[in-house]
This record gives sequence, C-alpha cells and structure tokens, in this order.
Amino acid sequence: MGCGYWGPKLIRSFYELSGVKVVSLCDVSPARLNAMRLKFPGVGLTTNFRDVLRDSTIDAVVIATPISTHYSLARQALRAGKHVLVEKPLTGSVKEAASLVQLAAKFKKILMVGHTFIYNPAVQKIGELLKERALGDLHYLDSVRVNLGLYQTDGRNVLWDLAPHDIAIILHWIGKPPVAVSAWGRSYLQNGIEDVAFMRLEFANSVFAHFHMSWLAPAKIRRMTVVGNQKMVLYDDLESAEKIRIADQGAHLDQSSSEMRVNYRMGDIVIPCIKAVEPLAQECAHFVECVLQGRAPETDGENGLEVVRILEAADKSLKKKGALIRV
Amino acid sequence: MGCGYWGPKLIRSFYELSGVKVVSLCDVSPARLNAMRLKFPGVGLTTNFRDVLRDSTIDAVVIATPISTHYSLARQALRAGKHVLVEKPLTGSVKEAASLVQLAAKFKKILMVGHTFIYNPAVQKIGELLKERALGDLHYLDSVRVNLGLYQTDGRNVLWDLAPHDIAIILHWIGKPPVAVSAWGRSYLQNGIEDVAFMRLEFANSVFAHFHMSWLAPAKIRRMTVVGNQKMVLYDDLESAEKIRIADQGAHLDQSSSEMRVNYRMGDIVIPCIKAVEPLAQECAHFVECVLQGRAPETDGENGLEVVRILEAADKSLKKKGALIRV
Amino acid sequence: MGCGYWGPKLIRSFYELSGVKVVSLCDVSPARLNAMRLKFPGVGLTTNFRDVLRDSTIDAVVIATPISTHYSLARQALRAGKHVLVEKPLTGSVKEAASLVQLAAKFKKILMVGHTFIYNPAVQKIGELLKERALGDLHYLDSVRVNLGLYQTDGRNVLWDLAPHDIAIILHWIGKPPVAVSAWGRSYLQNGIEDVAFMRLEFANSVFAHFHMSWLAPAKIRRMTVVGNQKMVLYDDLESAEKIRIADQGAHLDQSSSEMRVNYRMGDIVIPCIKAVEPLAQECAHFVECVLQGRAPETDGENGLEVVRILEAADKSLKKKGALIRV
Amino acid sequence: MGCGYWGPKLIRSFYELSGVKVVSLCDVSPARLNAMRLKFPGVGLTTNFRDVLRDSTIDAVVIATPISTHYSLARQALRAGKHVLVEKPLTGSVKEAASLVQLAAKFKKILMVGHTFIYNPAVQKIGELLKERALGDLHYLDSVRVNLGLYQTDGRNVLWDLAPHDIAIILHWIGKPPVAVSAWGRSYLQNGIEDVAFMRLEFANSVFAHFHMSWLAPAKIRRMTVVGNQKMVLYDDLESAEKIRIADQGAHLDQSSSEMRVNYRMGDIVIPCIKAVEPLAQECAHFVECVLQGRAPETDGENGLEVVRILEAADKSLKKKGALIRV
Repeated sequence: MGCGYWGPKLIRSFYELSGVKVVSLCDVSPARLNAMRLKFPGVGLTTNFRDVLRDSTIDAVVIATPISTHYSLARQALRAGKHVLVEKPLTGSVKEAASLVQLAAKFKKILMVGHTFIYNPAVQKIGELLKERALGDLHYLDSVRVNLGLYQTDGRNVLWDLAPHDIAIILHWIGKPPVAVSAWGRSYLQNGIEDVAFMRLEFANSVFAHFHMSWLAPAKIRRMTVVGNQKMVLYDDLESAEKIRIADQGAHLDQSSSEMRVNYRMGDIVIPCIKAVEPLAQECAHFVECVLQGRAPETDGENGLEVVRILEAADKSLKKKGALIRV
Repeated sequence: MGCGYWGPKLIRSFYELSGVKVVSLCDVSPARLNAMRLKFPGVGLTTNFRDVLRDSTIDAVVIATPISTHYSLARQALRAGKHVLVEKPLTGSVKEAASLVQLAAKFKKILMVGHTFIYNPAVQKIGELLKERALGDLHYLDSVRVNLGLYQTDGRNVLWDLAPHDIAIILHWIGKPPVAVSAWGRSYLQNGIEDVAFMRLEFANSVFAHFHMSWLAPAKIRRMTVVGNQKMVLYDDLESAEKIRIADQGAHLDQSSSEMRVNYRMGDIVIPCIKAVEPLAQECAHFVECVLQGRAPETDGENGLEVVRILEAADKSLKKKGALIRV
Repeated sequence: MGCGYWGPKLIRSFYELSGVKVVSLCDVSPARLNAMRLKFPGVGLTTNFRDVLRDSTIDAVVIATPISTHYSLARQALRAGKHVLVEKPLTGSVKEAASLVQLAAKFKKILMVGHTFIYNPAVQKIGELLKERALGDLHYLDSVRVNLGLYQTDGRNVLWDLAPHDIAIILHWIGKPPVAVSAWGRSYLQNGIEDVAFMRLEFANSVFAHFHMSWLAPAKIRRMTVVGNQKMVLYDDLESAEKIRIADQGAHLDQSSSEMRVNYRMGDIVIPCIKAVEPLAQECAHFVECVLQGRAPETDGENGLEVVRILEAADKSLKKKGALIRV
Repeated sequence: MGCGYWGPKLIRSFYELSGVKVVSLCDVSPARLNAMRLKFPGVGLTTNFRDVLRDSTIDAVVIATPISTHYSLARQALRAGKHVLVEKPLTGSVKEAASLVQLAAKFKKILMVGHTFIYNPAVQKIGELLKERALGDLHYLDSVRVNLGLYQTDGRNVLWDLAPHDIAIILHWIGKPPVAVSAWGRSYLQNGIEDVAFMRLEFANSVFAHFHMSWLAPAKIRRMTVVGNQKMVLYDDLESAEKIRIADQGAHLDQSSSEMRVNYRMGDIVIPCIKAVEPLAQECAHFVECVLQGRAPETDGENGLEVVRILEAADKSLKKKGALIRV
C-alpha cells in the first residue's frame, strides 16, 4: 500500500526475494499505480485497499503511506488477519501505536516497523562494539542529519521525518530508553512546521545523545559520533565503503600531577571492512523470515511504539521551547 | 606577558612587523622565559611585570596569560599608560571587562582583544556576503568546533575556551547582539568543568546561531554553516585553500500549488579564491596601526565586553540546565 | 544476450523505458537465466541465441557477453535484420569491428556501442566547455582509473577493461583521433595479462592524454583532469553530486619581465549543478530513439571502431614496451 | 648562503636548534638580506660568500641557491674546510656531484643533501613496513606530485624540481637503484622546459615506480601509492594528521578453480598514529649531529649523487621521447 517515493523501493526488494510473491500493489492515485505497471509487470493493481484485505492469498501487507494514515491502514490489515510491515514512524501518536501493538498481540500477527538503519551493517557493527564495551564507558553520542529538502512530511515537522532514524539507532545501541527529552526548532518556510531542529536525549549515567536535523542545509550530511572513554567512533553513512572509523584515543584524569590534570591520548584509527549489504533488502528478508517462523522482529511494534513515545515527547518539548520532558 | 602556548606566536608576529620593536618578554616561569632566549635572541627577559610597566620605552603590552589574570594585568598596564592587547576572552567576568573598557577610555589608551578570527579573510568574506545580502534573508547559523583536548582552561569549562571564537565571529557577521542565550553541557573528566557543550543564541527575526563545542571528539572539526533563503555558505577553517563554499540553493513556499507546498532549488557552488593571509599577522598589524593612528580597533574593549557578556550569560544558562537567559 | 554482471543492468533499463518491450533474455548458462526469472517475471528465457534471431517480433538485440563473442553474435544479429547494441568494446579487433560497421551499413541497421560515459551529464558538460573553448587552449588530459579487481576480462589485459572508457570520453571531447599511441604495463597475477598499465595518446598541437589504469590499487579512483591555458577542470566520477570542479586559474609567460618569466593566476572554483540522470538509462533511451527514428547514434559503429583501433594500437605498444605506434 | 624561498626556512630551523649558532647569512641580493634583518636580528649579513669562507668561527655552511650554483659554492666551502648541507638536488650533473663526493672524502668533511622527505615520519614509517615485509612482495609504486606553479627552476624542467623528492623517497624505501629509467614530457609555457612529465623507474623483480609531475594542474596533489601482494599503502602528504592508510587487501591467483582465476580480498584499513615532527627540523638536527659526531648522514653525498644520476638519465630519456635509459 503506497507507491510514492519509498513504496517502489520496498516493492523492488520484495520482488527480488525468493519465496515471496508480490500479489497486488495499491495506491489511491491511479497515475502512480500506472507508473508501476512498467516497472513491475504482471502484478495486480488496485486503488481500493479493501481488495487487498479481502484477498485471502495475501499473507502480509506493507504500508508506505503518509504518517497520518498508518494507524488506520495497519489496523484494518491486522484485523483482516494480515501480517504488517509499516514504514517508520509506526504511527503519529503513542495512543495509536499502543493500540496497534495490542491488536497485533490479539490477532497473533507480526507487526514490524521499517526502521531500516537497524538492518544496516555499519549500525550493527557499532552496536557490537558497544555491547563488547570496546569503546570503554560510553560518554555521549552526536548525530548530524541535515540536507536540503524533505523526504516525507504529511504536515509534520522535521523531527517526524529525520529523528525516527536517530532514535531507532540509539535505542538499538544503548538498549535502554532515555529518561528525558528536549527539543528546540524553528520554522522558516511553513508556519508552525519546524524545518530546523535540535534534540537531546538524556540517559542514565550522564550519557546523552544530541541530534541536529535540518531541511535547510547547504550539503547533505549523515554523520554520527560515538564517544567512549577509551575509543571513539565516527560513522558517516554517505561514505560508500569506509562508513566507520574507530579511533583508539581518549582522555583521562591524571590524579598524580597537580597542574595539568587531563591527559589526552592519540592512537591508530581502524576502518573496519564491512560487508556491502543493502539494508532495505535485509529488512524485507527479516520481515519474511519473522512471518514464516513466527518470530518477533528486531524492530517490532514495541520498538516502533518506543520510538513514537520519544518523538511525541520531543514534539511536546519543541512546542515548549526546549523544556525537558520526562519520558 | 605570557610565554605559554599562544604567547610565542604573538611574539613572532610582532617580531616580523616592521616599525615595531619587541623590547621585553615577561613570564612568571623562568623556564619558559629561557626557552624564548633561543627563539628570540637579543630581547629583554623578565619575570617581573613591574619591570615592563616601569619601562618608558615600552608603548604597548600584549597579554597572553590565563583568563583569571587578564583583568589585573590589563588594569595595571592601562594605568601605567600602556596600550593593551589582551588574548580572548577579554576577562573572566562582565564586571571586570566593563571596568577595563572604562579605564581605557579614561586613560585614552587602545584596548584590543585578540579575537583572531575577525582578521581571518574567510570570516571577512562571509561578513561581506551578509552585508551585501548576497545570501538573501539570513535564516540561521551553525558551528561545530570540536577536537580532542583543550587549548586553554584556567579551571573553566569548554565554553570559555571555544565559544569566544564563535561569539566574536557571529557578532561580526550579524552586527547586533543576541536577545537571549541558552547553553547545556556535561562534564566527564573533571567534576563541574563541562567538556562538551551546546549553545544557542537567539536574535531578532527568528535568526539563531547554534554551537557544538567539545574537548572529547574523535576528530578536529571547525565547520560553520550560514543559511540564507537564497544562498547557503559552508566555511571549513581546516581546509587549507578552499575554506568557503557558497551554494546557490534554497527553498521557497509555492503559494500557487495546493499539494506540494515547498520548492527546493539546487544550483552551482562557488569556492571563492581567498588570499592567503595569516590572521594573527593581520591582527598584530591592526593593533600597531590603531596604536599609531589612535583608531579604535575592530575588536576593541567594547567588542570584548560584549563577548564576555554572552559568555557569562551562557555559563549561567549552563548551570541552569539550558534555561533561556535574556542578554 | 548475456545475463552476467552488466546484462541485468541493461535489462532493467530497457524494462523501465516506455514504448519498449523486453521480449526475451538469452544466456548460455541456465543458472544465470533462472536467476533472471525472479527479477523480470513474464519475460521469455532461452539459452539458444537462434530463438532470438528467428523471433520476428524482436526488432533489436542487446549484447553483453565476453569481448571475444561480440563479433559473432552481432554479425548474426545484423544478418537476421536486427538493430544491435553491443557492450564496449565493440569487438576484440579492428578487423572484426570494421566488418560489423560494413554489415550494419549493408543491412541498414543501427549498430551502437555501449560507451555509457558519453551519456553521462558530467562528461557532456565538459564536452560543452571544450566546444565553447571555455578553458582556453587545451593543453593536456589525465585520467586515473584504478581499483582492486577486474570488471571484465575474457583473458585480456587491463587496457581492454578500463581504457575503452577513457578513449571514448576523450574522442568525444577532442573530436579528433590521436596521431600516435604508447602504452606500458606489468602483469603481476597472470602471466601475460597486464593488471597495471599506463597509456598515452598524442594529438596534434602538443595536446596529449595520459591514462593510469590498474586492477591492483588500494582504493577505487575515477578521476580525470582537463588542463587548458585559461581554466582547468577536475572530474571525479565517484562524487555523488559534485562531479566537476572548474578552476579559473592558469599560467602565462610574462614577456615584459626578464627574471621571473611565468606568472601563475589563481581564481574561483565553480562546481556546476549537474542534473542527476542515470547514464545507462540515457544510453538505452538513445538507442531506442535511434532505432525508431533511423538516426545514427552518438556512439555508433564508426565510433566503436575508432575506440578499438586505438585499443589495438595501445596493446601493440604494450607488447613493445611502450614503443610509439602511429594510429 | 641563499635567502630566497627555502633559505629562511632553513635559517629558522637552525636558529631554533640548541647548540647551534647562526653566525652569518649570505645572499647576492642586498634587498633579500635586508628582509632577513627583521626576522633574524643580531645575525651577520653579507653579500660576499668569501666572508663566510674566511670566517674561522663558522664550522658549516648551508647552501639554498639555484641548482647551477650548488657545485661551485659547495666546492669552495669544502675546500675552505667547512661541512656542507646543500639543498636538493645536490648538483645539476653527475660529474659535478661525483666531484663533490670526492672532495668531501678528501677533506674529511660532512657533505649532506637536503632530501627533507627522508626525515618525514610518514616516509620513515612506510620504509619500516617495507623492511619488515609487512606488505608482502612489493609490486609497484606510484606518485602524483602536481600543482599550479613551480617552486624552483633555474631554467630546468619539472623533473629537476619535483622528481628529486620521489627519487630520494623510493631509493630510501627500496634500498637499491633502478636498472632503467624512462621519462616523457611536454613544455607548454617555456620552449624546451617541460612543465608536465611522466617518469618510470624499473627495478629488478618486475618492481617499478611511476611518477606524474606537473606545474600545470588544477589542484595540489602529493599522493604516493605502494602496492604489495598482501597489503597496500596510500600516503597523502597534504593530510595534516592521517598521512598513511594501510589497506589489508590484495589479490592472488586461485590455482584450483578453472574459470575465475584471480581472487580479490578486501580487509580493514589502518591509519597509524604518526608523531607530528617537522621534517625540516629533523633534517637540520641530523646534520648538526653528523657534524658533531663525524657520522655519515642518511642523505649523504653518495645518496645525493645517486639521485642526480637518475635525474640525469631521466632528462636524457625525456629528450629522446621516453626511450629507456639504463642507469
């Protein structure tokens, strides 16, 4: 369901998975559907989602539509007994997300959110480093995710477009939810819709994560920094091969000396060889595997709900000019 | 006065200026003074600042010592009838800075602060672009100034080390003080001394500036972004030749269309050829010129006071976890 | 014909062109054909090229097989009255290439070679700059095209894999064939098959082009330099957006001065905004257009023959350790 | 002797060395000498080289003058009983260089050439890697050393300006002289003076080194590549911190398989932390140490002669349009 910007990428991925048959494509726009005819010959096309729900040969539904429609479409699909993969963010509110999670549990169906970055080998590699405590104690994380233009909006601000990536990644890395959230932004082009925003997640033990997001930036940047007390990692998702750099450097307090109390240590940098796998292909394969084996996905409904909970809190903080919101 | 990290660079610059004689070097540490003997043969050396003040052949004093000593040393120098160039920031408090400004006025002496970046051709070029409104309406500015290790501290946090640069640059570019300041940070190595901080200056007309500062970062970054509604500028001070990139791109609200309301425009990028001048040499020459001609320096005491006013407000906000402070 | 590395990319491109129907895929390997079934459902599959030739609903044949088979396959296709698009290089020898050109003329069919770079907007932009003489007098061109690993080989050396790109681009830019060719290389992994090579084309008026090609390099590089006496261009095909940099700089002989005779001039750099079009899609659309309108393609048989003529001369020079070969 | 472009850098380095006294500066131009007065107060200045030779308090002479004067000046200095450091290249001909080597031996004086790169920690690090055979069998080396403008010329072509660096580095790395040399170039600005050149050194065991040199290039590049069969190194001298990248990758012939015979292996990349030492300061300290201890310098007269021998052969090849010259 949904053949806009992201939909065709999902269709292509499922198309190329063995063991899967793409039965039907659905979109409210006949023009968009028609454009699919060329790319994916032989597939059913419909503007009526009910056709999909009624089709008993269809086991699972993939939803790539504007945020505001996620809840209603996913709800109908779950009720019709379909497994559901919803594009990120799961829904536009905590209430809706919680309701979908309950529904999936009730109907014993897989509910998965398309947090693609969790299926990105670079993100997984940093997750392993953190799990093995290879960076020492984690201090803080920083993310810059800016570019010119919006990818999706549905009348919502830049937080709802770009923060789902950072939140999902950081929840995956840290493994625990933040205790508080703060966000601040400005809207330049559309009244009330922030196109530049900063966001902070505060975790236990002084750990924090800071995000800089913008639809008004001179260059596209996708850069995350992970600072531990023994090693530090730079992750640039726009690099084709060398996405991660692990710097063996740090600082510690020198208790013995009285004057210069902090020592800084510089060491080698390692760029690990990461296998070139397409995250979206991994995500789709994972969904199919979970459906077939009845397993809970990495990015299941609960995970999607957690991301929406933080997004909602951040949006609330944004409206209150950066006030700290407990999560 | 002061032969630590920055002092010798200033000495070298004045040394190579025609029309200037470096009479005497002063430092409390005899070891540091001794190290100067080799580099600057034939220059007087003393550990007693009074020797300098008493020497009637000395017209001007340059102070490159820890922040906490700026006020007392500059005060003595002004009272002894010397012109004074003080390293940034001017002092450690607004009260002290205001007092120095008054003193300089009273004794009719030049009081200048070493905000080097104001003498950097790249900063000046962007200043001209903004003055000519070549970027259209200014939306916002962003600065990332991070590295591993501190340059100066004197028991103060990362704001006092790195923010003076950004504040001085942005005052120069915008020409007006901010209306409010917010800052938030964390201290990892020394209790109560923040080594990572974020700061925001809010100006009139929705313009804001955001700074990310850190002593705990995997790589050195000195990158500023200036976003206007017609053009956008990237300024990377670590680039040797191509410091500035002017992107002829922007976004505007399309009033005619009903569905997709924002249009994004991509255009050429221009990297202007900027003459390779050493900012510190320019700064020292400017000081000498102001002394000789009795002119107010670009970065005079008033300017230094303004920077300290913002720093003090930011530090106050930092202590209050990011509370907005009116300036 | 050919479903190996490059074939599926061509199939996909034709698939997505309106007005074109992909009738049949052919490959000698049933396994490779089977893999196509998933990606391109509903298309005919055959291991017998004769099936294709006999099929009167097929107007044009696309050949993406090892070099040594190009001639025989293209010959059969032309004789069967099909238009033909052959992957680069056209054939493995001048004799074969000339024969195909004659055959295409005789049967009045389109013969086109897949020199994709000619359909690359960055290459076209530089072509326009040269045509308008925007760089002044052309001095020389340099190309570095190195990486780890080979893309195609068919028992031939690195020249036959990588030089077709550079030769085709430079013929397009200069518009005239070189007068002489020299090449030198070394084989490290397979006896007699050079994996590192350097090549030089000498044109009239002291213009030359130098290529560095390697299958044994630590990093992938695709960088071309065009030096004129008024401007210089850097073209990096691996850059996603900023492929071309035009530097307004040069040097000229100062006749007036006696001592320092050469003056160097540095100016701005412009990175033109180039529309993001996929070269392969452009190439396929161009082939279809030429077939429908009976027009000669940009990279027609003559062009492909010219490239092979230079390749053959270069290979001859390589065997003679760099001896200059007249073309 | 010589206060042009490079001289003052040498003077500054010796100035800052403890245990050394800079007694006298000499240059044929009074204007250039005068400019030194400001930078180096208290030092003797003379336009007459004989003053230097006669001064018995002077132990060593440093020569940074045009190439054509090296021989005569160094000869006089050696004969006057001075140790001599000559800028690269040692002389303009093998004959002159050999004569200086003999003279130094006869008078038992240190004769050293300023091949600065040998004192560069990055070059030394790669030398150690090669010595330890950390890259496996060495295949080939490649160097790109291009920029806009010449650094020194003295009426000679780009080979004499830029190749001394590459030759000295590669002799240091390989430890053996090449068996043959080839060079080819073009002159665009001054008749008979090549401003663009390519050069190849052939060593035993199929090892070769290729250099690309130019005074007419859109950007400054200083990049060397070292390819072994087990690891490969990229060395970019313009990088401030990350000069060397060691890629754990390679290719080998797979004897077992019949079809695809070469396997390529990609691995991690390591950027070793190299201490930030100024090569010129190291070079000057090494000269002083050799003088004081009577030790042969790393870059002694013999080494300088070897470099000139290769330069002369390359220049001969250049005149013969690339003909291979035995060394």
